[in-house]
Amino acid sequence: MSDTREEKSESRSAILLIHCPDKKGLVASVTEFIYKNNGNIISLDEHVDARKQVFFMRVEWELMDFAIPAEKIGEEFQASIADTFGMDWRLHFSDETPRVAIFVSKLPHCLYDILSRSQYEKWNAEVPLIISNHPDLEPVAERFGIDYHVFPVTKANKQEQEEKQLALLKEHDIDFIVLARYMQVLTDEFVANYPNRIINIHHSFLPAFPGAKPYHSAYERGVKIIGATCHYVTADLDAGPIIEQDVVRVSHQDAVEDMVRKGQDLEKVVLSRAVWYHLKRKVLVYDNRTIVFT
Amino acid sequence: MSDTREEKSESRSAILLIHCPDKKGLVASVTEFIYKNNGNIISLDEHVDARKQVFFMRVEWELMDFAIPAEKIGEEFQASIADTFGMDWRLHFSDETPRVAIFVSKLPHCLYDILSRSQYEKWNAEVPLIISNHPDLEPVAERFGIDYHVFPVTKANKQEQEEKQLALLKEHDIDFIVLARYMQVLTDEFVANYPNRIINIHHSFLPAFPGAKPYHSAYERGVKIIGATCHYVTADLDAGPIIEQDVVRVSHQDAVEDMVRKGQDLEKVVLSRAVWYHLKRKVLVYDNRTIVFT
Amino acid sequence: MSDTREEKSESRSAILLIHCPDKKGLVASVTEFIYKNNGNIISLDEHVDARKQVFFMRVEWELMDFAIPAEKIGEEFQASIADTFGMDWRLHFSDETPRVAIFVSKLPHCLYDILSRSQYEKWNAEVPLIISNHPDLEPVAERFGIDYHVFPVTKANKQEQEEKQLALLKEHDIDFIVLARYMQVLTDEFVANYPNRIINIHHSFLPAFPGAKPYHSAYERGVKIIGATCHYVTADLDAGPIIEQDVVRVSHQDAVEDMVRKGQDLEKVVLSRAVWYHLKRKVLVYDNRTIVFT
Amino acid sequence: MSDTREEKSESRSAILLIHCPDKKGLVASVTEFIYKNNGNIISLDEHVDARKQVFFMRVEWELMDFAIPAEKIGEEFQASIADTFGMDWRLHFSDETPRVAIFVSKLPHCLYDILSRSQYEKWNAEVPLIISNHPDLEPVAERFGIDYHVFPVTKANKQEQEEKQLALLKEHDIDFIVLARYMQVLTDEFVANYPNRIINIHHSFLPAFPGAKPYHSAYERGVKIIGATCHYVTADLDAGPIIEQDVVRVSHQDAVEDMVRKGQDLEKVVLSRAVWYHLKRKVLVYDNRTIVFT
Repeated sequence: MSDTREEKSESRSAILLIHCPDKKGLVASVTEFIYKNNGNIISLDEHVDARKQVFFMRVEWELMDFAIPAEKIGEEFQASIADTFGMDWRLHFSDETPRVAIFVSKLPHCLYDILSRSQYEKWNAEVPLIISNHPDLEPVAERFGIDYHVFPVTKANKQEQEEKQLALLKEHDIDFIVLARYMQVLTDEFVANYPNRIINIHHSFLPAFPGAKPYHSAYERGVKIIGATCHYVTADLDAGPIIEQDVVRVSHQDAVEDMVRKGQDLEKVVLSRAVWYHLKRKVLVYDNRTIVFT
Repeated sequence: MSDTREEKSESRSAILLIHCPDKKGLVASVTEFIYKNNGNIISLDEHVDARKQVFFMRVEWELMDFAIPAEKIGEEFQASIADTFGMDWRLHFSDETPRVAIFVSKLPHCLYDILSRSQYEKWNAEVPLIISNHPDLEPVAERFGIDYHVFPVTKANKQEQEEKQLALLKEHDIDFIVLARYMQVLTDEFVANYPNRIINIHHSFLPAFPGAKPYHSAYERGVKIIGATCHYVTADLDAGPIIEQDVVRVSHQDAVEDMVRKGQDLEKVVLSRAVWYHLKRKVLVYDNRTIVFT
Repeated sequence: MSDTREEKSESRSAILLIHCPDKKGLVASVTEFIYKNNGNIISLDEHVDARKQVFFMRVEWELMDFAIPAEKIGEEFQASIADTFGMDWRLHFSDETPRVAIFVSKLPHCLYDILSRSQYEKWNAEVPLIISNHPDLEPVAERFGIDYHVFPVTKANKQEQEEKQLALLKEHDIDFIVLARYMQVLTDEFVANYPNRIINIHHSFLPAFPGAKPYHSAYERGVKIIGATCHYVTADLDAGPIIEQDVVRVSHQDAVEDMVRKGQDLEKVVLSRAVWYHLKRKVLVYDNRTIVFT
Repeated sequence: MSDTREEKSESRSAILLIHCPDKKGLVASVTEFIYKNNGNIISLDEHVDARKQVFFMRVEWELMDFAIPAEKIGEEFQASIADTFGMDWRLHFSDETPRVAIFVSKLPHCLYDILSRSQYEKWNAEVPLIISNHPDLEPVAERFGIDYHVFPVTKANKQEQEEKQLALLKEHDIDFIVLARYMQVLTDEFVANYPNRIINIHHSFLPAFPGAKPYHSAYERGVKIIGATCHYVTADLDAGPIIEQDVVRVSHQDAVEDMVRKGQDLEKVVLSRAVWYHLKRKVLVYDNRTIVFT
């Protein structure tokens, strides 16, 4: 009955996420760039979308002994590799600590789970604030010592409230947002501020049952399996690029409230996996689909 | 590495499927009827739909020593129990051998699987004929020594061909039909001849991706899980009561043809489970949903 | 994106769990007893172990209008039914609130999950105390306002410490115990105080990898799926009756610490399902196996 | 309801499987070798075992326009890359058609499935012969027009029969062997002839329930999930490197024969996935574990 949680002891590493038109020599050029500068590759994943002829790559290497200082890597990579191949790329470092805002409404299960995990899984992330349209979950925030801000939203005041939320997010230097069962639809203007940086958990197996009350719809349709879907938020409701999904079996014995109970377990775990992938810089988005290098 | 397939040695039993408005005393009355006639209950399942206040029951008992002869059970049950409670009911016997027709088009995986299983699982069923709109799978039918009838279907001749098919089905005394990836939509008139007795396998996780080319749609939407759905055919395309579903994980690495390959494994197993439930008289249909007493 | 957690509005009900040698008339007798006393059956499950010829039943009925007062039901059932059939039975009421003690060591994930759930799922249970062999998780207990007692355990003092723990448990009138990754093996004497009332989560797919460090063993063996198992504790280590299991896929990419991370998600959900079944009186134990009427 | 099976149109490609001590520059060197010879990489996977410091790689590239003729690639790769890094490697070509022998006993489900698939999935493989210790499945072989050889095995004649089997396998130029529920344990001498080229399906979730009658053992232990495991055969019974596993849920309602029925569906699909990975050259074996580049 014994086992202790081990941590990979990780030295500082660089993570490069690339996509560009497919062409011969891409992997060779990128890996040669790392090798000749004395970098040790920890992991490398690549993918070619054969239909669209697009190349995707994620490569992570140790910075110890790397010939180029961290702050110059981007510049040198652009000049010596990216320009040649017309690459879109992002560079991250393993010791960055993104700042996350959590949006909630009245349901606490995802909030509890994220806050618990951020502690016991020692996430490389800080959660400086929680935003809600209801006061209900303030006690949960208090338990974990996190600021809780209430912005009641109506049709009339939505734009105004979102502006205040955005100001608050900027003030706290927020990198990305987790909608942990936040029941408001965000405006396109709001979303445009955080492209591919707002993660939502939807309580159905999308594209089945988008919109409101999916468990009720699942019950009505008589499905034998229900699901949960985590995706980046885009201007189209529940139609953004899917990061992760999972499912659980149900039967005629499950009333709507049983589906809700079973589904909440899914929501928690699917959301946390997606946030993990995002934090570990494992997600590329292209053409409303994700490449997740698990 | 050894294990032999065992058979439950089963004596003859009766299976009663019931639904009616919920009321006190239902289980007591049915089980008392069996008990006082000296029947030994092998299995009993009941379910109450709390929203609609409908009661469902499946009960199976051994006929050995049962006081009422098999051919009189229905009559006596109607008079002494069913009338009182306003029950809808069906009575089956475990030694019935339903006659099944399989409809196919060009894809052989489900056909191979059904024909193999009908042999090695010793299904209580006979497959006297296969019907197709294409000649392609005739060699498979020949391998298993089953008659194969080709009815090419066009918009113009669909009604006429269906009438011929119906004549053939009646001639062969067919009890129910399995659409094993049959690519034609059946007319309402055809379907009306076999209510809740036409089983279709749809190659998606319904209600996601109904209609044609679901694997292509799943690819486009970027889902992380694909599924297959088995349902009774009704007048609404891909909207009949769902009997069974299952899913498999996919990723960005899976091209459409990989989804097809993975999905075919699902289709086989989901279809065979649904046919098994149907054969074992485990399925009740109510309000476009199924109660499957697994 | 909206859905509110609904509660089944439940009036008070009685739950009867029965097992006895199989015989004709069992279901009829029990349901007749309920019916003639004007009880409305909410759910009924029965199972016959065909090999051992043992009958199992769980039946739940509404007490409103029931002719026998709650405190007399047991007595009357014993006299009029149980004696006749030689039944073992337990009677519960839906409004009982069992008192649960949680045992932990240093890992907080299961503890966080149980405490969160006991609140947001509105469990019919009270958690008056947490017992540990280490002080590490006291802050978690404090967050939820629950007493935390530390009993450091060594080979030398184990018996003595267990006696103190037992005294504490009795003082708090504890009904059952949840070992939420408690790293000590309990003595047979301790276990004997709570037969089928100590629930343990083991971090492997038992009977694979019993004992210590199962994730390491799973890694060494190169399995492609890992699991978690919840069982009642018996005198044999990791060999008690299994209540629930679940699994997750792993690959060569998963180091031991990845298995730990993935496995912890399993442990949480498997443990909570098992506790749910136990709380809902859905579990019968016979011959070191469980019948779980889900 | 329509979808046609699509084939990736594949030109001829080379597949290189490598492992060696981990070192800087490995990916760069291999990909540079391919690039400078004008090869277009179709897919590339690598993995580093951080504990053992071993590097694994699978790379596939199109041979069209490749500067080195197919028959010289190995030689040049050895001289220019493999020698430097101390690599173990294997080179395959996508248009090879391995020759497979299937061993069976009395159970037909895996045999039916493999033979069906080898046709409808258009496997790049030939099955020139089936070997059995019983005559029972000859009719299945006949259905598919494949030679069936019976070698009854006793303790006394096992060595002699295996020698005859080996002679037959060599005569037919067999590349690898599939044990499709073959109930005999092969001798070490036999196994030594086909290292990592004998694929067995075991009907349990190994390492749980090795050896005979695993479904009976699973029933006795009261597990809630059963599994199937495909592995390469080694001298240790049921202990070879695992290629693939899968599971299915069971309950107290499932008698041993229900587990057998559910398990057979697993066995079919797990075996076929493993054979698929093997055929596609996606499996590397190291230290009794597999790296499967799915």
